[in-house]
Amino acid sequence: MSKLTRFTVSLDDGLLDRFDKQIKAQGYPTRSKAVVDLIGDALVKEEWESGHEVAAAIIMVYDHHKRGLSTNLTHIQHDYHHLIVTSQHIHLDHSNCLEIVVVRGKPKEVRELAGKMKATKGVKYASLSAASTGKNL
Amino acid sequence: MSKLTRFTVSLDDGLLDRFDKQIKAQGYPTRSKAVVDLIGDALVKEEWESGHEVAAAIIMVYDHHKRGLSTNLTHIQHDYHHLIVTSQHIHLDHSNCLEIVVVRGKPKEVRELAGKMKATKGVKYASLSAASTGKNL
Amino acid sequence: MSKLTRFTVSLDDGLLDRFDKQIKAQGYPTRSKAVVDLIGDALVKEEWESGHEVAAAIIMVYDHHKRGLSTNLTHIQHDYHHLIVTSQHIHLDHSNCLEIVVVRGKPKEVRELAGKMKATKGVKYASLSAASTGKNL
Amino acid sequence: MSKLTRFTVSLDDGLLDRFDKQIKAQGYPTRSKAVVDLIGDALVKEEWESGHEVAAAIIMVYDHHKRGLSTNLTHIQHDYHHLIVTSQHIHLDHSNCLEIVVVRGKPKEVRELAGKMKATKGVKYASLSAASTGKNL
Repeated sequence: MSKLTRFTVSLDDGLLDRFDKQIKAQGYPTRSKAVVDLIGDALVKEEWESGHEVAAAIIMVYDHHKRGLSTNLTHIQHDYHHLIVTSQHIHLDHSNCLEIVVVRGKPKEVRELAGKMKATKGVKYASLSAASTGKNL
Repeated sequence: MSKLTRFTVSLDDGLLDRFDKQIKAQGYPTRSKAVVDLIGDALVKEEWESGHEVAAAIIMVYDHHKRGLSTNLTHIQHDYHHLIVTSQHIHLDHSNCLEIVVVRGKPKEVRELAGKMKATKGVKYASLSAASTGKNL
Repeated sequence: MSKLTRFTVSLDDGLLDRFDKQIKAQGYPTRSKAVVDLIGDALVKEEWESGHEVAAAIIMVYDHHKRGLSTNLTHIQHDYHHLIVTSQHIHLDHSNCLEIVVVRGKPKEVRELAGKMKATKGVKYASLSAASTGKNL
Repeated sequence: MSKLTRFTVSLDDGLLDRFDKQIKAQGYPTRSKAVVDLIGDALVKEEWESGHEVAAAIIMVYDHHKRGLSTNLTHIQHDYHHLIVTSQHIHLDHSNCLEIVVVRGKPKEVRELAGKMKATKGVKYASLSAASTGKNL
């Protein structure tokens, strides 16, 4: 099991005062937790640049009435089935739906899959949301 | 129903050549679709700045063994239940799980909820992935 | 004068180990300096959202042969002369030049000026680089 | 010399209406220029990922009273003198100065130099602003 370690940060009191205000507004219980989150964000950014396995969600908005669209999206997902953990479909209104595809794999492949889904005719919006497998966090 | 409109873009042939290479690599069927996606991205960015209703996904990674964590996250989600459409839980490994909360509402409230979940003790990583309700796309 | 304050961060040793590797690669002399920089980045981001006075650089690439272009850019800069601190011109090659305009003012006005310069016919690329007046850092 | 080429974009009239409002607010003279800028941004992003030569500005805020700081920054700039085109120094107030270093080279080296300057003790804020040499735009 991992254990906790401590280290000390020294900074200007004016800067600390502003940081305290910011993290209070964000609902942080302690400075330490806020700093650990900043560190986590920096490490996840690196994880994506270094090519290690990552987790992510691809979020799409599309009109499910468009003919052939869901078939096309299904085909693409099958070509990348080794990356896909799960996918979920939400009805936003009569025509629009939000689909969330949870993936894990190499950043390059994950980006490729997201690109193909975005490029599909009829998809109105798609974005890739980077996360982490949590192994190294 | 909406109807299609056309307009013409004129640009340098060298630039067009590079754009064609880029969108071919991304799997776009036509230049028009690639441009429409660039426009869609720009509009969704504006939607988030202007305060209109948006859709989004909040993605969190945490260790479900942490005592009290899931109770705390549930409490927060109840405080913002009017924003939450659905949430989904994925087991990444023995300890880590990925939770995806789909929300819709004003950008300010959505950011507030995401901030509170990120600030919760035990949450390793959280990010907010902006999308759109699709109404204006 | 400001004085230094200290606080302690406690985090998982695995996470600290990864952070140490990251900041070593980035050339940081101490963990404390690296954390202070993460805090500074978070505060500057807030400065831009809150509407306080900021400093920034607008960077443009354009072909100085385009007729009327530099006159147009000069007109725009005069309309916003109260924001502009200095501007600098660099010859990239026979046709391309890089112009850097240093500005300070409200984020809204700074974005407006950057937008107008980017929209000017003949400007190939323009981006706004957020910085800070340093007063609160 | 390069020549102009044209292509047609077809999109939903509702979407076009929103795009027209957005670009009018940003001061664009024509839809075509606005689209060409979106394309340029996408190409510059790719330029940075692909490792080709880029141009950039590194912007720093620091207190010039800090002992040894300007010497340290000068040493770093000398180690990377092959990247540096020019640098400019602006006095923000009694203690703070803004320094802008214009660079061109491989994205990897440019990021490395920016990282080292940011990591230098006494530098309050540093950011790297991506631009392009304009050759391919």
